[in-house]
Amino acid sequence: MSWNAEREKKSTEGSRAPIGVFDSGVGGLTVMREIMRQLPSERAVYFGDTARVPYGSKSRETVLRYSRQIIRFLRTRGVKAIVVACNTASAYALETIRGEIDLPVIGVVKPGAKVAAQATRTGRIGVIGTEGTIHSQIYPEYIARWNPQAVVLGKACPLFVPLVEEGLLEDPVTDEIASRYLKAFDGSGIDTLILGCTHYPLLRSTVRRIMGETVTLVNPAYETARSLKELLRERGLENPDAQASGRPEAAEQAQGGHPGQYEFYVSDSVEHFQRFANTILPFAVEKAAQIPIEEY
Amino acid sequence: MSWNAEREKKSTEGSRAPIGVFDSGVGGLTVMREIMRQLPSERAVYFGDTARVPYGSKSRETVLRYSRQIIRFLRTRGVKAIVVACNTASAYALETIRGEIDLPVIGVVKPGAKVAAQATRTGRIGVIGTEGTIHSQIYPEYIARWNPQAVVLGKACPLFVPLVEEGLLEDPVTDEIASRYLKAFDGSGIDTLILGCTHYPLLRSTVRRIMGETVTLVNPAYETARSLKELLRERGLENPDAQASGRPEAAEQAQGGHPGQYEFYVSDSVEHFQRFANTILPFAVEKAAQIPIEEY
Repeated sequence: MSWNAEREKKSTEGSRAPIGVFDSGVGGLTVMREIMRQLPSERAVYFGDTARVPYGSKSRETVLRYSRQIIRFLRTRGVKAIVVACNTASAYALETIRGEIDLPVIGVVKPGAKVAAQATRTGRIGVIGTEGTIHSQIYPEYIARWNPQAVVLGKACPLFVPLVEEGLLEDPVTDEIASRYLKAFDGSGIDTLILGCTHYPLLRSTVRRIMGETVTLVNPAYETARSLKELLRERGLENPDAQASGRPEAAEQAQGGHPGQYEFYVSDSVEHFQRFANTILPFAVEKAAQIPIEEY
Repeated sequence: MSWNAEREKKSTEGSRAPIGVFDSGVGGLTVMREIMRQLPSERAVYFGDTARVPYGSKSRETVLRYSRQIIRFLRTRGVKAIVVACNTASAYALETIRGEIDLPVIGVVKPGAKVAAQATRTGRIGVIGTEGTIHSQIYPEYIARWNPQAVVLGKACPLFVPLVEEGLLEDPVTDEIASRYLKAFDGSGIDTLILGCTHYPLLRSTVRRIMGETVTLVNPAYETARSLKELLRERGLENPDAQASGRPEAAEQAQGGHPGQYEFYVSDSVEHFQRFANTILPFAVEKAAQIPIEEY
Protein backbone atom coordinates (compact mmCIF):
# COMPACT_ATOMS: atom_id res chain seq x y z
CA MET A 1 0.00 0.00 0.00
CA SER A 2 1.42 3.40 -0.93
CA TRP A 3 2.00 6.03 1.69
CA ASN A 4 -0.87 8.16 0.35
CA ALA A 5 -3.25 5.25 0.28
CA GLU A 6 -2.35 4.40 3.83
CA ARG A 7 -2.91 7.98 4.92
CA GLU A 8 -6.27 7.99 3.15
CA LYS A 9 -7.31 4.82 4.94
CA LYS A 10 -6.27 6.22 8.32
CA SER A 11 -8.02 9.54 7.86
CA THR A 12 -11.35 7.84 7.11
CA GLU A 13 -11.33 5.73 10.24
CA GLY A 14 -13.12 8.57 12.04
CA SER A 15 -14.07 7.89 15.61
CA ARG A 16 -12.01 4.68 15.72
CA ALA A 17 -8.87 6.73 14.97
CA PRO A 18 -6.37 7.37 17.76
CA ILE A 19 -5.83 10.56 19.74
CA GLY A 20 -2.50 12.28 19.08
CA VAL A 21 -0.64 13.40 22.19
CA PHE A 22 2.68 15.25 22.19
CA ASP A 23 5.19 16.74 24.56
CA SER A 24 8.77 17.98 24.52
CA GLY A 25 9.86 14.72 26.15
CA VAL A 26 8.69 12.36 28.87
CA GLY A 27 6.68 14.83 30.98
CA GLY A 28 3.58 14.51 28.81
CA LEU A 29 3.31 10.88 29.86
CA THR A 30 1.56 12.17 32.99
CA VAL A 31 -1.18 13.39 30.61
CA MET A 32 -1.06 10.14 28.65
CA ARG A 33 -1.56 8.25 31.91
CA GLU A 34 -4.69 10.26 32.71
CA ILE A 35 -6.05 9.61 29.21
CA MET A 36 -5.44 5.88 29.69
CA ARG A 37 -7.26 5.98 33.02
CA GLN A 38 -10.19 8.19 32.09
CA LEU A 39 -10.69 7.14 28.45
CA PRO A 40 -9.82 3.43 28.47
CA SER A 41 -11.59 2.75 25.15
CA GLU A 42 -9.52 5.23 23.17
CA ARG A 43 -6.44 4.51 21.12
CA ALA A 44 -3.58 7.00 21.40
CA VAL A 45 -0.33 7.91 19.66
CA TYR A 46 2.28 9.66 21.84
CA PHE A 47 5.18 11.70 20.47
CA GLY A 48 7.98 12.92 22.77
CA ASP A 49 10.47 15.35 21.21
CA THR A 50 13.37 13.91 23.19
CA ALA A 51 16.02 15.09 20.68
CA ARG A 52 15.09 18.72 21.36
CA VAL A 53 13.85 18.60 24.95
CA PRO A 54 13.39 20.84 26.95
CA TYR A 55 11.06 23.47 25.47
CA GLY A 56 10.71 25.43 28.73
CA SER A 57 13.74 27.67 28.17
CA LYS A 58 13.27 28.13 24.40
CA SER A 59 11.60 30.94 22.47
CA ARG A 60 8.04 31.14 21.19
CA GLU A 61 9.17 31.00 17.57
CA THR A 62 11.25 27.85 18.10
CA VAL A 63 8.53 26.07 20.10
CA LEU A 64 5.97 26.92 17.39
CA ARG A 65 8.22 25.53 14.62
CA TYR A 66 8.76 22.30 16.55
CA SER A 67 5.03 21.94 17.31
CA ARG A 68 4.12 22.31 13.62
CA GLN A 69 6.56 19.55 12.65
CA ILE A 70 5.13 17.24 15.30
CA ILE A 71 1.56 17.85 14.17
CA ARG A 72 2.54 17.04 10.58
CA PHE A 73 3.94 13.76 11.89
CA LEU A 74 0.89 12.96 14.03
CA ARG A 75 -1.38 13.53 11.02
CA THR A 76 0.46 10.79 9.15
CA ARG A 77 -0.74 8.50 11.97
CA GLY A 78 -4.34 9.43 11.16
CA VAL A 79 -5.24 11.00 14.50
CA LYS A 80 -8.77 12.31 15.14
CA ALA A 81 -7.77 14.94 17.73
CA ILE A 82 -4.58 16.42 19.16
CA VAL A 83 -3.60 16.97 22.79
CA VAL A 84 -0.73 19.38 23.32
CA ALA A 85 0.51 17.71 26.52
CA CYS A 86 3.17 20.34 27.22
CA ASN A 87 2.50 23.58 29.03
CA THR A 88 5.16 25.52 27.12
CA ALA A 89 3.86 24.40 23.72
CA SER A 90 0.27 25.05 24.88
CA ALA A 91 1.33 28.54 25.92
CA TYR A 92 3.33 29.42 22.81
CA ALA A 93 1.82 27.43 19.95
CA LEU A 94 -1.74 26.29 20.63
CA GLU A 95 -3.71 29.29 19.38
CA THR A 96 -1.69 29.54 16.16
CA ILE A 97 -1.93 25.82 15.44
CA ARG A 98 -5.66 25.76 16.04
CA GLY A 99 -6.10 28.24 13.19
CA GLU A 100 -4.01 26.11 10.84
CA ILE A 101 -5.59 22.65 11.02
CA ASP A 102 -9.05 21.12 10.78
CA LEU A 103 -8.76 18.77 13.76
CA PRO A 104 -9.86 19.48 17.33
CA VAL A 105 -6.82 20.54 19.37
CA ILE A 106 -6.69 20.90 23.12
CA GLY A 107 -3.86 21.99 25.36
CA VAL A 108 -3.12 21.53 29.04
CA VAL A 109 -3.39 25.20 30.00
CA LYS A 110 -7.05 25.96 29.49
CA PRO A 111 -8.50 23.01 31.46
CA GLY A 112 -6.26 23.75 34.47
CA ALA A 113 -6.90 27.50 34.27
CA LYS A 114 -10.68 26.98 34.18
CA VAL A 115 -10.76 24.74 37.24
CA ALA A 116 -8.48 27.11 39.18
CA ALA A 117 -10.56 30.16 38.20
CA GLN A 118 -13.69 28.44 39.50
CA ALA A 119 -12.09 26.88 42.62
CA THR A 120 -10.53 29.96 44.20
CA ARG A 121 -12.38 31.64 47.06
CA THR A 122 -9.77 34.29 47.87
CA GLY A 123 -9.49 35.25 44.19
CA ARG A 124 -5.73 34.76 44.35
CA ILE A 125 -4.17 31.94 42.30
CA GLY A 126 -0.55 30.80 42.06
CA VAL A 127 1.04 29.15 39.01
CA ILE A 128 4.36 27.32 38.88
CA GLY A 129 5.93 26.29 35.56
CA THR A 130 8.91 26.60 33.23
CA GLU A 131 10.34 29.98 32.31
CA GLY A 132 8.53 29.83 28.95
CA THR A 133 5.13 29.11 30.48
CA ILE A 134 5.41 31.80 33.17
CA HIS A 135 6.94 34.38 30.81
CA SER A 136 4.11 33.84 28.29
CA GLN A 137 1.47 35.02 30.82
CA ILE A 138 -0.84 32.39 29.34
CA TYR A 139 -2.34 31.28 32.67
CA PRO A 140 -3.39 34.81 33.74
CA GLU A 141 -4.93 35.31 30.27
CA TYR A 142 -7.02 32.13 30.43
CA ILE A 143 -7.98 32.54 34.09
CA ALA A 144 -9.36 36.01 33.32
CA ARG A 145 -11.92 34.46 30.93
CA TRP A 146 -13.74 32.79 33.84
CA ASN A 147 -12.66 35.03 36.69
CA PRO A 148 -11.68 38.52 35.52
CA GLN A 149 -11.12 39.71 39.11
CA ALA A 150 -8.63 36.96 39.98
CA VAL A 151 -5.05 37.94 40.80
CA VAL A 152 -2.57 35.44 39.33
CA LEU A 153 0.98 35.10 40.66
CA GLY A 154 3.47 33.12 38.58
CA LYS A 155 6.81 31.61 39.58
CA ALA A 156 9.24 29.82 37.25
CA CYS A 157 10.91 26.74 38.78
CA PRO A 158 13.65 25.78 36.28
CA LEU A 159 15.27 23.12 38.51
CA PHE A 160 12.12 21.04 39.04
CA VAL A 161 12.36 19.17 35.71
CA PRO A 162 16.04 18.17 36.12
CA LEU A 163 15.37 17.14 39.74
CA VAL A 164 12.47 14.91 38.66
CA GLU A 165 14.50 13.43 35.80
CA GLU A 166 17.33 12.71 38.27
CA GLY A 167 14.77 10.76 40.33
CA LEU A 168 14.95 13.05 43.38
CA LEU A 169 11.20 12.97 43.99
CA GLU A 170 11.45 12.67 47.79
CA ASP A 171 14.70 14.31 48.77
CA PRO A 172 15.95 17.06 51.10
CA VAL A 173 17.53 18.87 48.14
CA THR A 174 14.22 18.95 46.29
CA ASP A 175 12.52 20.13 49.51
CA GLU A 176 15.07 22.95 49.84
CA ILE A 177 14.75 24.08 46.21
CA ALA A 178 10.94 23.83 46.38
CA SER A 179 10.90 25.87 49.62
CA ARG A 180 12.90 28.63 47.92
CA TYR A 181 10.71 28.73 44.82
CA LEU A 182 7.45 28.56 46.79
CA LYS A 183 8.57 31.32 49.17
CA ALA A 184 7.44 33.58 46.33
CA PHE A 185 3.87 32.90 47.55
CA ASP A 186 4.48 33.77 51.23
CA GLY A 187 1.86 36.26 52.37
CA SER A 188 0.27 36.29 48.91
CA GLY A 189 -3.06 34.90 50.09
CA ILE A 190 -3.31 32.31 47.30
CA ASP A 191 -5.66 29.42 48.01
CA THR A 192 -5.13 27.60 44.68
CA LEU A 193 -1.88 26.58 42.99
CA ILE A 194 -1.63 25.25 39.44
CA LEU A 195 1.10 22.65 38.80
CA GLY A 196 1.77 24.22 35.39
CA CYS A 197 4.33 21.77 33.98
CA THR A 198 3.71 18.12 33.18
CA HIS A 199 6.58 16.95 35.40
CA TYR A 200 5.26 18.74 38.47
CA PRO A 201 2.50 16.31 39.50
CA LEU A 202 5.42 13.98 40.34
CA LEU A 203 6.47 16.56 42.99
CA ARG A 204 2.94 16.89 44.30
CA SER A 205 3.64 15.61 47.82
CA THR A 206 6.65 17.93 48.26
CA VAL A 207 4.60 20.93 47.12
CA ARG A 208 1.69 19.83 49.32
CA ARG A 209 3.97 19.65 52.39
CA ILE A 210 5.31 23.17 51.83
CA MET A 211 2.03 24.84 50.82
CA GLY A 212 -0.08 23.12 53.50
CA GLU A 213 -3.50 21.48 53.30
CA THR A 214 -5.50 24.67 52.77
CA VAL A 215 -4.17 25.37 49.28
CA THR A 216 -5.90 23.49 46.44
CA LEU A 217 -3.40 21.95 44.02
CA VAL A 218 -4.62 21.82 40.41
CA ASN A 219 -3.18 19.08 38.19
CA PRO A 220 -3.74 20.10 34.54
CA ALA A 221 -3.07 16.53 33.34
CA TYR A 222 -6.20 15.32 35.13
CA GLU A 223 -8.32 18.24 33.95
CA THR A 224 -7.07 17.84 30.37
CA ALA A 225 -8.18 14.20 30.17
CA ARG A 226 -11.61 15.27 31.50
CA SER A 227 -11.88 18.02 28.88
CA LEU A 228 -10.79 15.64 26.14
CA LYS A 229 -13.54 13.20 27.12
CA GLU A 230 -16.11 15.98 26.93
CA LEU A 231 -14.77 17.23 23.59
CA LEU A 232 -14.94 13.76 21.99
CA ARG A 233 -18.51 13.33 23.22
CA GLU A 234 -19.59 16.73 21.87
CA ARG A 235 -18.07 16.08 18.45
CA GLY A 236 -19.34 12.48 18.23
CA LEU A 237 -15.76 11.24 18.12
CA GLU A 238 -15.85 8.74 20.98
CA ASN A 239 -14.53 5.33 20.02
CA PRO A 240 -17.60 3.03 19.67
CA ASP A 241 -15.49 -0.08 20.39
CA ALA A 242 -15.82 0.23 24.16
CA GLN A 243 -13.78 -2.89 24.63
CA ALA A 244 -11.95 -2.06 27.82
CA SER A 245 -14.56 -0.10 29.72
CA GLY A 246 -16.92 -1.69 32.22
CA ARG A 247 -15.02 -4.95 32.30
CA PRO A 248 -13.36 -6.15 35.52
CA GLU A 249 -9.88 -6.05 33.98
CA ALA A 250 -10.39 -2.45 32.79
CA ALA A 251 -8.17 -0.91 35.43
CA GLU A 252 -5.38 -3.31 34.61
CA GLN A 253 -5.73 -2.71 30.90
CA ALA A 254 -5.66 1.03 31.44
CA GLN A 255 -2.08 0.60 32.60
CA GLY A 256 -0.96 -1.24 29.50
CA GLY A 257 -3.88 -1.40 27.07
CA HIS A 258 -4.70 -4.08 24.50
CA PRO A 259 -2.19 -4.77 21.73
CA GLY A 260 -1.95 -1.83 19.37
CA GLN A 261 -3.97 0.51 21.56
CA TYR A 262 -1.01 2.78 22.31
CA GLU A 263 1.88 3.82 20.07
CA PHE A 264 4.95 5.72 21.27
CA TYR A 265 7.31 7.75 19.09
CA VAL A 266 10.34 9.84 20.00
CA SER A 267 12.91 11.96 18.16
CA ASP A 268 15.94 10.65 20.08
CA SER A 269 16.89 7.07 20.89
CA VAL A 270 14.19 4.76 22.13
CA GLU A 271 16.33 3.35 24.95
CA HIS A 272 16.69 6.75 26.63
CA PHE A 273 12.95 7.30 26.48
CA GLN A 274 12.06 3.88 27.82
CA ARG A 275 14.49 4.19 30.70
CA PHE A 276 13.12 7.57 31.78
CA ALA A 277 9.51 6.63 31.11
CA ASN A 278 9.76 3.41 33.06
CA THR A 279 11.42 5.25 35.97
CA ILE A 280 8.81 7.96 36.17
CA LEU A 281 5.60 6.19 35.25
CA PRO A 282 3.61 3.29 36.68
CA PHE A 283 3.30 1.51 33.33
CA ALA A 284 6.01 0.09 31.08
CA VAL A 285 6.51 1.52 27.60
CA GLU A 286 7.48 -1.67 25.85
CA LYS A 287 7.56 -0.55 22.24
CA ALA A 288 8.56 2.82 20.84
CA ALA A 289 10.01 4.01 17.52
CA GLN A 290 12.37 6.84 16.63
CA ILE A 291 11.21 9.42 14.04
CA PRO A 292 13.36 11.99 12.15
CA ILE A 293 11.11 14.83 13.26
CA GLU A 294 13.12 17.57 11.53
CA GLU A 295 12.02 16.14 8.19
CA TYR A 296 8.32 16.80 8.89
CA MET B 1 28.10 39.40 -4.28
CA SER B 2 26.50 35.98 -4.65
CA TRP B 3 26.52 33.51 -1.80
CA ASN B 4 29.00 31.28 -3.65
CA ALA B 5 31.32 34.17 -4.46
CA GLU B 6 31.26 35.22 -0.84
CA ARG B 7 32.07 31.73 0.29
CA GLU B 8 34.93 31.56 -2.20
CA LYS B 9 36.32 34.82 -0.87
CA LYS B 10 36.12 33.64 2.72
CA SER B 11 37.76 30.30 2.03
CA THR B 12 40.78 31.97 0.39
CA GLU B 13 41.49 34.23 3.33
CA GLY B 14 43.66 31.47 4.82
CA SER B 15 45.40 32.31 8.03
CA ARG B 16 43.42 35.54 8.49
CA ALA B 17 40.20 33.49 8.58
CA PRO B 18 38.41 32.99 11.89
CA ILE B 19 38.37 29.91 14.08
CA GLY B 20 34.98 28.19 14.30
CA VAL B 21 33.88 27.21 17.81
CA PHE B 22 30.68 25.38 18.65
CA ASP B 23 28.79 24.01 21.61
CA SER B 24 25.29 22.81 22.46
CA GLY B 25 24.63 26.16 24.14
CA VAL B 26 26.38 28.62 26.40
CA GLY B 27 28.84 26.24 28.11
CA GLY B 28 31.34 26.43 25.25
CA LEU B 29 31.83 30.09 26.04
CA THR B 30 34.28 28.94 28.73
CA VAL B 31 36.39 27.59 25.85
CA MET B 32 35.80 30.75 23.81
CA ARG B 33 37.04 32.79 26.78
CA GLU B 34 40.29 30.78 26.93
CA ILE B 35 40.79 31.26 23.18
CA MET B 36 40.29 35.02 23.61
CA ARG B 37 42.85 35.06 26.43
CA GLN B 38 45.48 32.78 24.94
CA LEU B 39 45.11 33.66 21.23
CA PRO B 40 44.25 37.37 21.30
CA SER B 41 45.22 37.89 17.64
CA GLU B 42 42.74 35.35 16.31
CA ARG B 43 39.26 36.01 15.01
CA ALA B 44 36.56 33.55 16.07
CA VAL B 45 32.98 32.58 15.16
CA TYR B 46 30.96 30.96 17.96
CA PHE B 47 27.84 28.89 17.41
CA GLY B 48 25.65 27.80 20.35
CA ASP B 49 22.86 25.32 19.54
CA THR B 50 20.49 26.85 22.06
CA ALA B 51 17.36 25.60 20.28
CA ARG B 52 18.40 21.98 20.90
CA VAL B 53 20.45 22.25 24.10
CA PRO B 54 21.38 20.09 26.03
CA TYR B 55 23.31 17.40 24.15
CA GLY B 56 24.43 15.59 27.33
CA SER B 57 21.38 13.34 27.60
CA LYS B 58 20.94 12.70 23.85
CA SER B 59 22.11 9.79 21.70
CA ARG B 60 25.27 9.51 19.63
CA GLU B 61 23.34 9.53 16.36
CA THR B 62 21.42 12.70 17.23
CA VAL B 63 24.51 14.54 18.46
CA LEU B 64 26.37 13.56 15.27
CA ARG B 65 23.55 14.84 13.05
CA TYR B 66 23.46 18.15 14.91
CA SER B 67 27.26 18.52 14.76
CA ARG B 68 27.28 18.00 10.98
CA GLN B 69 24.68 20.72 10.49
CA ILE B 70 26.70 23.15 12.62
CA ILE B 71 29.90 22.44 10.71
CA ARG B 72 28.09 23.10 7.44
CA PHE B 73 27.03 26.44 8.88
CA LEU B 74 30.50 27.32 10.22
CA ARG B 75 32.01 26.60 6.79
CA THR B 76 29.77 29.28 5.28
CA ARG B 77 31.59 31.69 7.63
CA GLY B 78 34.92 30.68 6.05
CA VAL B 79 36.56 29.25 9.16
CA LYS B 80 40.14 27.92 9.00
CA ALA B 81 39.80 25.42 11.87
CA ILE B 82 37.03 24.03 14.07
CA VAL B 83 36.93 23.65 17.84
CA VAL B 84 34.25 21.28 19.14
CA ALA B 85 33.79 23.10 22.46
CA CYS B 86 31.38 20.54 23.88
CA ASN B 87 32.46 17.36 25.63
CA THR B 88 29.45 15.36 24.48
CA ALA B 89 29.92 16.33 20.81
CA SER B 90 33.67 15.71 21.14
CA ALA B 91 32.89 12.26 22.54
CA TYR B 92 30.22 11.27 20.03
CA ALA B 93 31.01 13.13 16.80
CA LEU B 94 34.63 14.27 16.59
CA GLU B 95 36.27 11.20 15.04
CA THR B 96 33.55 10.83 12.40
CA ILE B 97 33.60 14.51 11.49
CA ARG B 98 37.37 14.56 11.19
CA GLY B 99 37.14 11.97 8.43
CA GLU B 100 34.53 14.01 6.55
CA ILE B 101 36.10 17.46 6.20
CA ASP B 102 39.41 18.95 5.08
CA LEU B 103 39.83 21.44 7.96
CA PRO B 104 41.73 20.86 11.19
CA VAL B 105 39.26 19.90 13.93
CA ILE B 106 40.02 19.70 17.63
CA GLY B 107 37.79 18.73 20.50
CA VAL B 108 37.92 19.37 24.23
CA VAL B 109 38.42 15.75 25.27
CA LYS B 110 41.89 14.93 23.93
CA PRO B 111 43.75 17.96 25.39
CA GLY B 112 42.26 17.38 28.86
CA ALA B 113 42.85 13.62 28.68
CA LYS B 114 46.51 14.10 27.69
CA VAL B 115 47.28 16.49 30.55
CA ALA B 116 45.54 14.22 33.07
CA ALA B 117 47.33 11.12 31.76
CA GLN B 118 50.67 12.87 32.24
CA ALA B 119 49.84 14.58 35.55
CA THR B 120 48.71 11.59 37.60
CA ARG B 121 51.18 10.01 40.01
CA THR B 122 48.84 7.42 41.53
CA GLY B 123 47.71 6.30 38.06
CA ARG B 124 44.09 6.83 39.07
CA ILE B 125 42.10 9.57 37.32
CA GLY B 126 38.52 10.72 37.88
CA VAL B 127 36.25 12.24 35.21
CA ILE B 128 32.98 14.08 35.78
CA GLY B 129 30.69 14.99 32.87
CA THR B 130 27.24 14.60 31.33
CA GLU B 131 25.63 11.19 30.90
CA GLY B 132 26.62 11.19 27.22
CA THR B 133 30.27 11.93 27.88
CA ILE B 134 30.63 9.37 30.67
CA HIS B 135 28.60 6.71 28.84
CA SER B 136 30.76 7.11 25.71
CA GLN B 137 33.92 6.02 27.60
CA ILE B 138 35.82 8.57 25.51
CA TYR B 139 38.04 9.81 28.35
CA PRO B 140 39.36 6.32 29.30
CA GLU B 141 40.02 5.67 25.60
CA TYR B 142 42.09 8.84 25.13
CA ILE B 143 43.88 8.58 28.48
CA ALA B 144 45.05 5.06 27.56
CA ARG B 145 46.97 6.50 24.58
CA TRP B 146 49.42 8.28 26.91
CA ASN B 147 49.04 6.16 30.03
CA PRO B 148 47.81 2.64 29.27
CA GLN B 149 48.11 1.61 32.94
CA ALA B 150 45.88 4.41 34.25
CA VAL B 151 42.61 3.50 35.91
CA VAL B 152 39.86 5.95 34.96
CA LEU B 153 36.71 6.38 37.06
CA GLY B 154 33.78 8.28 35.53
CA LYS B 155 30.78 9.86 37.23
CA ALA B 156 27.86 11.55 35.44
CA CYS B 157 26.58 14.70 37.19
CA PRO B 158 23.33 15.58 35.36
CA LEU B 159 22.27 18.33 37.79
CA PHE B 160 25.45 20.43 37.47
CA VAL B 161 24.44 22.15 34.22
CA PRO B 162 20.95 23.19 35.42
CA LEU B 163 22.44 24.37 38.74
CA VAL B 164 25.00 26.54 36.92
CA GLU B 165 22.36 27.90 34.55
CA GLU B 166 20.18 28.75 37.57
CA GLY B 167 23.12 30.77 38.90
CA LEU B 168 23.67 28.61 42.01
CA LEU B 169 27.47 28.69 41.72
CA GLU B 170 28.09 29.18 45.45
CA ASP B 171 25.16 27.60 47.23
CA PRO B 172 24.51 24.96 49.90
CA VAL B 173 22.30 23.01 47.48
CA THR B 174 25.09 22.85 44.91
CA ASP B 175 27.49 21.80 47.69
CA GLU B 176 25.12 19.01 48.73
CA ILE B 177 24.58 17.72 45.19
CA ALA B 178 28.32 17.96 44.45
CA SER B 179 29.12 16.05 47.67
CA ARG B 180 26.79 13.25 46.60
CA TYR B 181 28.18 12.99 43.09
CA LEU B 182 31.82 13.22 44.24
CA LYS B 183 31.28 10.58 46.94
CA ALA B 184 31.74 8.19 44.01
CA PHE B 185 35.49 8.90 44.34
CA ASP B 186 35.75 8.19 48.09
CA GLY B 187 38.58 5.74 48.70
CA SER B 188 39.32 5.54 44.97
CA GLY B 189 42.82 6.96 45.28
CA ILE B 190 42.42 9.43 42.39
CA ASP B 191 44.87 12.34 42.41
CA THR B 192 43.58 14.00 39.21
CA LEU B 193 40.02 14.98 38.29
CA ILE B 194 38.93 16.13 34.83
CA LEU B 195 36.11 18.72 34.73
CA GLY B 196 34.67 17.00 31.66
CA CYS B 197 31.85 19.41 30.78
CA THR B 198 32.25 23.02 29.68
CA HIS B 199 29.98 24.30 32.47
CA TYR B 200 31.99 22.64 35.23
CA PRO B 201 34.90 25.10 35.47
CA LEU B 202 32.26 27.48 36.86
CA LEU B 203 31.85 25.03 39.79
CA ARG B 204 35.60 24.73 40.25
CA SER B 205 35.73 26.18 43.78
CA THR B 206 32.92 23.90 45.01
CA VAL B 207 34.64 20.84 43.55
CA ARG B 208 37.99 22.03 44.98
CA ARG B 209 36.49 22.36 48.46
CA ILE B 210 35.07 18.83 48.38
CA MET B 211 38.02 17.10 46.73
CA GLY B 212 40.69 18.91 48.77
CA GLU B 213 43.96 20.52 47.71
CA THR B 214 45.79 17.30 46.87
CA VAL B 215 43.69 16.45 43.81
CA THR B 216 44.72 18.19 40.56
CA LEU B 217 41.70 19.62 38.72
CA VAL B 218 42.06 19.57 34.93
CA ASN B 219 40.14 22.22 32.99
CA PRO B 220 39.81 21.04 29.36
CA ALA B 221 38.88 24.56 28.19
CA TYR B 222 42.32 25.84 29.16
CA GLU B 223 44.13 22.85 27.64
CA THR B 224 42.08 23.09 24.44
CA ALA B 225 43.10 26.70 23.81
CA ARG B 226 46.74 25.69 24.35
CA SER B 227 46.40 22.81 21.87
CA LEU B 228 44.71 25.07 19.36
CA LYS B 229 47.59 27.54 19.55
CA GLU B 230 50.06 24.73 18.90
CA LEU B 231 47.98 23.34 16.03
CA LEU B 232 47.75 26.73 14.27
CA ARG B 233 51.51 27.21 14.60
CA GLU B 234 52.28 23.73 13.20
CA ARG B 235 50.00 24.27 10.22
CA GLY B 236 51.19 27.83 9.55
CA LEU B 237 47.65 29.07 10.20
CA GLU B 238 48.38 31.71 12.87
CA ASN B 239 46.88 35.08 12.08
CA PRO B 240 49.79 37.32 10.91
CA ASP B 241 47.87 40.47 11.95
CA ALA B 242 49.07 40.33 15.56
CA GLN B 243 47.16 43.46 16.35
CA ALA B 244 46.14 42.77 19.90
CA SER B 245 49.15 40.86 21.19
CA GLY B 246 52.02 42.55 23.03
CA ARG B 247 50.20 45.84 23.41
CA PRO B 248 49.37 47.22 26.87
CA GLU B 249 45.63 47.08 26.21
CA ALA B 250 45.83 43.44 25.11
CA ALA B 251 44.31 42.06 28.29
CA GLU B 252 41.37 44.42 28.03
CA GLN B 253 40.87 43.66 24.34
CA ALA B 254 40.94 39.95 25.05
CA GLN B 255 37.70 40.46 27.00
CA GLY B 256 35.89 42.18 24.19
CA GLY B 257 38.13 42.18 21.13
CA HIS B 258 38.33 44.72 18.33
CA PRO B 259 35.25 45.34 16.20
CA GLY B 260 34.46 42.30 14.07
CA GLN B 261 36.94 40.03 15.82
CA TYR B 262 34.24 37.82 17.35
CA GLU B 263 30.91 36.72 15.90
CA PHE B 264 28.22 34.90 17.87
CA TYR B 265 25.43 32.79 16.40
CA VAL B 266 22.69 30.76 18.07
CA SER B 267 19.77 28.58 17.00
CA ASP B 268 17.27 30.00 19.50
CA SER B 269 16.52 33.61 20.35
CA VAL B 270 19.45 35.96 20.83
CA GLU B 271 18.01 37.52 24.00
CA HIS B 272 18.07 34.18 25.85
CA PHE B 273 21.67 33.59 24.85
CA GLN B 274 22.84 37.05 25.82
CA ARG B 275 21.15 36.91 29.19
CA PHE B 276 22.75 33.56 30.06
CA ALA B 277 26.09 34.46 28.53
CA ASN B 278 26.29 37.76 30.34
CA THR B 279 25.38 36.06 33.64
CA ILE B 280 27.95 33.33 33.33
CA LEU B 281 30.86 35.03 31.60
CA PRO B 282 33.11 37.98 32.41
CA PHE B 283 32.65 39.61 29.00
CA ALA B 284 29.52 40.95 27.37
CA VAL B 285 28.18 39.37 24.18
CA GLU B 286 26.83 42.50 22.58
CA LYS B 287 25.92 41.21 19.13
CA ALA B 288 24.62 37.80 18.16
CA ALA B 289 22.42 36.47 15.35
CA GLN B 290 19.92 33.63 15.14
CA ILE B 291 20.47 30.94 12.47
CA PRO B 292 17.93 28.31 11.24
CA ILE B 293 20.39 25.50 11.93
CA GLU B 294 18.04 22.70 10.84
CA GLU B 295 18.32 23.99 7.27
CA TYR B 296 22.08 23.33 7.11
